[in-house]
Amino acid sequence: ILLANGVYAAAYPLHDGDYEGENVEFNDRKLLYEEWACYGVFYKYQPIDLVRKYFGEKIGLYFAWLGVYTQMLIPASIVGIIVFLYGCATVDENIPSMEMCDQRQNITMCPLCDKTCSYWKMSSACATARASHLFDNPATVFFSVFMALWGKQGLSGKNIGDDPRFMFRLLGSSLHRERHTVKLTWRDRFPAYLTNLVSIIFMIAVTFAIVLGVIIYRISMAAALAMNSSPSVRSNIRVTVTATAVIINLVVIILLDEVYGCIARWLTKIEVPKTEKSFEERLIFKAFLLKFVNSYTPIFYVAFFKGRFVGRPGDYVYIFRSFRMEECAPGGCLMELCIQLSIIMLGKQLIQNNLFEIGIPKMKKLIRYLKLKRQSPPDHEECVKRKQRYEVDYNLEPFAGLTPEYMEMIIQFGFVTLFVASFPLAPLFALLNNIIEIRLDAKKFVTELRRPVAVRAKDIGIWYNILRGIGKLAVIINAFVISFTSDFIPRLVYLYMYSKNGTMHGFVNHTLSSFNVSDFQNGTAPNDPLDLGYEVQICRYKDYREPPWSENKYDISKDFWAVLAARLAFVIVFQNLVMFMSDFVDWVIPDIPKDISQQIHKEKVLMVELFMREEQDKQQLLETWMEKERQKDEPPCNHHNPKACPDSLSSPAPSHTYHGGVL
Amino acid sequence: ILLANGVYAAAYPLHDGDYEGENVEFNDRKLLYEEWACYGVFYKYQPIDLVRKYFGEKIGLYFAWLGVYTQMLIPASIVGIIVFLYGCATVDENIPSMEMCDQRQNITMCPLCDKTCSYWKMSSACATARASHLFDNPATVFFSVFMALWGKQGLSGKNIGDDPRFMFRLLGSSLHRERHTVKLTWRDRFPAYLTNLVSIIFMIAVTFAIVLGVIIYRISMAAALAMNSSPSVRSNIRVTVTATAVIINLVVIILLDEVYGCIARWLTKIEVPKTEKSFEERLIFKAFLLKFVNSYTPIFYVAFFKGRFVGRPGDYVYIFRSFRMEECAPGGCLMELCIQLSIIMLGKQLIQNNLFEIGIPKMKKLIRYLKLKRQSPPDHEECVKRKQRYEVDYNLEPFAGLTPEYMEMIIQFGFVTLFVASFPLAPLFALLNNIIEIRLDAKKFVTELRRPVAVRAKDIGIWYNILRGIGKLAVIINAFVISFTSDFIPRLVYLYMYSKNGTMHGFVNHTLSSFNVSDFQNGTAPNDPLDLGYEVQICRYKDYREPPWSENKYDISKDFWAVLAARLAFVIVFQNLVMFMSDFVDWVIPDIPKDISQQIHKEKVLMVELFMREEQDKQQLLETWMEKERQKDEPPCNHHNPKACPDSLSSPAPSHTYHGGVL
Repeated sequence: ILLANGVYAAAYPLHDGDYEGENVEFNDRKLLYEEWACYGVFYKYQPIDLVRKYFGEKIGLYFAWLGVYTQMLIPASIVGIIVFLYGCATVDENIPSMEMCDQRQNITMCPLCDKTCSYWKMSSACATARASHLFDNPATVFFSVFMALWGKQGLSGKNIGDDPRFMFRLLGSSLHRERHTVKLTWRDRFPAYLTNLVSIIFMIAVTFAIVLGVIIYRISMAAALAMNSSPSVRSNIRVTVTATAVIINLVVIILLDEVYGCIARWLTKIEVPKTEKSFEERLIFKAFLLKFVNSYTPIFYVAFFKGRFVGRPGDYVYIFRSFRMEECAPGGCLMELCIQLSIIMLGKQLIQNNLFEIGIPKMKKLIRYLKLKRQSPPDHEECVKRKQRYEVDYNLEPFAGLTPEYMEMIIQFGFVTLFVASFPLAPLFALLNNIIEIRLDAKKFVTELRRPVAVRAKDIGIWYNILRGIGKLAVIINAFVISFTSDFIPRLVYLYMYSKNGTMHGFVNHTLSSFNVSDFQNGTAPNDPLDLGYEVQICRYKDYREPPWSENKYDISKDFWAVLAARLAFVIVFQNLVMFMSDFVDWVIPDIPKDISQQIHKEKVLMVELFMREEQDKQQLLETWMEKERQKDEPPCNHHNPKACPDSLSSPAPSHTYHGGVL
Repeated sequence: ILLANGVYAAAYPLHDGDYEGENVEFNDRKLLYEEWACYGVFYKYQPIDLVRKYFGEKIGLYFAWLGVYTQMLIPASIVGIIVFLYGCATVDENIPSMEMCDQRQNITMCPLCDKTCSYWKMSSACATARASHLFDNPATVFFSVFMALWGKQGLSGKNIGDDPRFMFRLLGSSLHRERHTVKLTWRDRFPAYLTNLVSIIFMIAVTFAIVLGVIIYRISMAAALAMNSSPSVRSNIRVTVTATAVIINLVVIILLDEVYGCIARWLTKIEVPKTEKSFEERLIFKAFLLKFVNSYTPIFYVAFFKGRFVGRPGDYVYIFRSFRMEECAPGGCLMELCIQLSIIMLGKQLIQNNLFEIGIPKMKKLIRYLKLKRQSPPDHEECVKRKQRYEVDYNLEPFAGLTPEYMEMIIQFGFVTLFVASFPLAPLFALLNNIIEIRLDAKKFVTELRRPVAVRAKDIGIWYNILRGIGKLAVIINAFVISFTSDFIPRLVYLYMYSKNGTMHGFVNHTLSSFNVSDFQNGTAPNDPLDLGYEVQICRYKDYREPPWSENKYDISKDFWAVLAARLAFVIVFQNLVMFMSDFVDWVIPDIPKDISQQIHKEKVLMVELFMREEQDKQQLLETWMEKERQKDEPPCNHHNPKACPDSLSSPAPSHTYHGGVL
C-alpha cells in the first residue's frame, strides 16, 4: 500500500551482500557467483538447490528446466553432427547431384523470370545441388524420426515437475491471489474479448503482409538484377537475393517480437483476468501465438509454398498481375529452407542474446552510473563502499519476470524440432547457445538484477502445454518437410517404379518436363535467347507434366499423381510410426522405475506402520495424562469436539503425506 | 494354509442372508437384489456405494465403469440412429445408386469367376447399391469424426479414477503381494518368454489360417453354386455365400475365444510373474491380444484387403494357383463389411450373453442341485431351509474374477469405435446389450456367485491403457475405412475433377474400366456367354485402368493415382483434425472445473488454517499439562524424541491429506 501511494519507489528483497571483492564475508550470493554464474563452470551441473533457496522456486525451476533441456540437446547434437558428416561423406557418390553437375548432359532450363531472364544451363546449379545433398539424404529421415521422438518424449519438464521436493510447497501459494475483487460479467468482458480477437487477427495479417512484401521484394530484385549487364552480378543473383531477403526477414522478426510483446501485455490487461496465474497464462498464450507466427511464417512459406504455385512455362501464375511467382533452385527448396532457418535462428540468438541481454542492461547500468556520478562527482568511490545494501541494490535492474527467458527457449525449441529435417545442425547451435545462456542468465540474476521476490511454483505451468503442442506439431511438420520439401520421395518412386537398372541414373531427367519455346505467351519469351550459342527449341522445367508432343500437352501427368500419393503415404506412415514408437517408449521405459516405485511403496507402508506405532504410544501416554488430569480438574480434550481429539492424533493418514515429502 | 492342505474345500466370505422370501430380515443383499439386480430398474442409476460396500472396491469400480460407459453410449446411439435415418431418407435421391438401378444403362459386367460364371448386368446389383447408401453417405463421415472424438475422450474411466473416494483406500492394498518369494534371474525366465512369444505368434498364425480357409470356402462355394443350373440358387449366390461364411467365422471366433483364454492363462503361469498385479496385467494383455486378433481379423480382411488384389480381367491374381481372389459387390465393400460386422457383433453378444452367462451357470446349478438331491432325496425342501449360510453359499459358483466381464466390454467397445464408419447402428446395439448386461451381471453377483473377497483398487488398471489404445486405433482405422472402403473419396474426386455439370451423373460409368473379351486368357473366358441374349465384346469391371484402345492397355490410369492421392490426403486430414479437436476439447472442457478447483483450493486453505489454530490451542493445552507434569514427576513427551513430539502435533501438513479424503 505504501508502494502504491508513492512513499516508497520500489519494494524488493535485499541481496545477501557483495559478490566480489576480497574482504567481503562468505555468503550465498558470493557462492552462487563463484559456483554458478561464470562461464568457467559451464561443464558442471548447476547448484539448483542453492538457486532455489536464494531466488525462490519459480526461478529455480526455470534453471532446472533449462539445465535438463540443455543436457538433452547433447545427444541430439551428436546425432545431428553424425548425420551431417554422413551427408558430407556421401556427397561425391550421389548420382543425382553428379548428373546435375555433368557438363555433357547439357540440359537447357526455361528462364526464371519473364523477358529479362534468359535460358540457363542445368550444370550452373551444380554447387546448390551438391550442398543440398548435405541436408537431403536418407540419414535425414532417420534423424527426423529420432528428433520427433526426442521432442515428444524428452522435453516435457515432467522429470522436474515430478520431483517431490517441488511438490509439497505449493500450499498457500500466491498464484491464486486475486488481482481484482470486482466481479465482471460476460457482458462486461465481451468488448475486451472482441478487441483481443480482432487485434490478434490483425497482427497475424500484418505478419503475413510483411512476408508477402519480402516475397515481392525478392521477385522484383531478381528481375532487376537479371537486367544488369555485368556478368558477376548475374551469376550471384540467387545468393544476393536470398541473403538480403532473409536479413530483412530477420530484422522484421526481431523488431516485431518486441512490438508484439507489448501488444500482448496490453491486450491481456484489458481482459482483466481474475488471478495472477490466469493473467500470466493468458499473456503467455497471446505472446507465444504472435511470436510463433512472426518467427515461423517466412520459414513455413519457404518450406511448403515456395515453388508450388508457379504454374508452367507459357502459363505462369502471377500475383498482382505483374509479379511471376518465384521457383525453387533445381536442387530442391530444402537448401533454401536450410539457409533461411540457419540465418534466422543464429541471427535471432546472437542479436537477442548479445544486444538485448548483455548490451542493453550494460547500457542502462551505465546511464544510471552516469546519473549517479553527476549527483556526487568527487568521492563516488568511497560513496559506493559506504552505501547501504538497499542503495546498492536500487541501482540494479528490477526483475521483469521469467516470461522472456522461457519464450526465447521455446522459440528455440521450435527451431530445433519443427524443421529439423532440413537443418540437422540446429540442435548443435542451440546447445552452444544454451551453454552460454545459462551462465548469462545466472550472471544477470546474481549481479545485475535486484533480488526477485521468491515465488512458489509446482511446475513450469503453461509452458509445459506449449512444449507438448510443439512436440506434436513437430511430428507432422517434419513428415511434410521430408515428403514434400525434400526430394526423398521422388527419388524412392523413381528407384522402384521407373529406374531401368535399379540405380538413380536418369532421375534428374525424369523430374524435368519439356516445354516447346514456341508456346510462350506473347511478351514473356526471353529477350536475349542467343546467350548460349545455339538456338533453343525445347527448354526444361521442374515439374511432372505431359510433354509438348503429347495429346494433352502440359497437362499434369500420371507421374505427378503417383509421386503425390507416395508423398502422402509417407506422411501417414511417418506420423503413425512416430506415434506408435512414442507410445512404445512410454510403455517400455517405466518398466525399470516400476520396481523402484514398488520399493518406495513398501518403504512408505513400513514408515506408516512405524509412525502409527509411535503415535499410538504417544496417544497412550497422552491418555494416561488425560486420565490423570480428568481426575484432577477440568476435562482436558473437550476443547472442540470430544471425539475428534484422539482421532486426529491416531489417524495414520496424515503421516502418509507428511513423510511423502521426504521420500 | 489350511486351504492349501486340503482341510477346507474353499474359503470365501459369506453372503448377508437370503435375498428372496417374505420372512427374511432386511439386509444389504436383499436391498441390492431389489434395487439393483433386476431388470425392472434398468432406467435407474446403480447404487454404486452399496455395491462397493458389499462386494469391495474392485467390483464396485467395474459396475461404476460399466454404468458410465453405458450412459455414454446413449448420445452415440442417438447420433447413430439419426445418421441411419438420414441414409434412409436420402436413398431415393442418390444418383449413383439410381444409375446402377437404371435398366436402360444396360452395362455388362465381367464374370466374377473363371469359366462357370457368366457376364452379368449392372442393374442386378441394384438392391446392394441402395442398401450401401444407408451406410455410405456424407453423414457417415461426420459420424466417424464424432465417434473418434467420443472414443478418445469420453471413455477413459478417468472420471471414475479421479473420484477421491476411490483414491484414499489404496494404502495397504494387497495388489503388491508377492506371488513367489523365489527370485528368478533373466536366464531362468528366458525359456518361458520364448514359449510365450512363439505361442502367441503361432496362435495369431492359426487365426490367419482360419480366415484364409474361410476365404477359400467362399471362393469355391461361389464357383460351385454358379455351376448349379437352378436360377433361384444362382440369383442368391452372394447372399448365401456371405451368410454361411460369416456364420462359420462367428462360430470359430466364439470357440477360439474360449481356447485362447485358457492358453493365455497357461502362458502367464509359466512366466511366473512377481506380484498378483503383474500376473493379472500380463494375463489380460495376452488374452486381449489373442482375442482381439481373433475377433477382428475377418473384419479387417473385408475392410481393407477384399477386392484390392484381384488383378484385372485377363490377368487375375490366384491363390494356390487355382482360386481366383474374390471381388467386392459393385456397391463397394462397405456393405459386406457392415453385414460381417453386425452378424459377428450381435452373434457374439447374443451367444456369449445368453448361452455362456445365463445358460451355463444355470446348468451347473442344476447339476449341483441334482447331485444334492441324490444325496438327500426325501426332505430337501426343509433341508435347504435349515442349512447354514455357508452351506447354501457353497452351492453357488465361485467368483472367477472380473477379467471376462471387462474383456467382453472392451471387445464390444472395439466394435463400437473401430469400424463405426461402416455400421452407425453399432452403438445402439451395444447400448441395448449393456442395459441387459448390467442387470445380468448384478443378478449373477447377488444370487449365483459366492460372495467374492473384497479387493481394493484405485482404477480400472491395464484396461484403461487398452481403452486408450483402442481409442487411438479407432481414429486411424475409421480414416482408412472412409477413404479406402467407402466410395466417399472417389465420389468427391469425380464431383470436383471430372463431373461436367457439377452433379454425380456419370459417376458409375467413371469408376468402371473396359475390357475387350478377346483378351481373356485361355480357359478363363465364361463357358456360357450367350446368357444375355446378345454377343458381348466389351465387359466392364470396377477399377481405374486404361481402356483396351489405349496405347498402354489395362495399365493403371492417371485417375487411379489421383483417387489414391485424394484418399491418402483424406486420411491425413481426418487423423489430424480429430487429434486437434480432441486436444481442443481437452483444453476447453476443464475451463469450468477450474473455478471449482480454485474453490476447493480456497476451502482447503481455510480448513488448514482452522485446523492449525485448533492444533495450536491443543498444543498449548498439552504444553500446560506437560509443564505441570514435568513439575510433578517424569518428563512426559520424551518417549521417542523430545523435539518430534510437539512437531508432529502442530504440523499443518497432515491435515491437508486427511481432509482431502472428504473433499
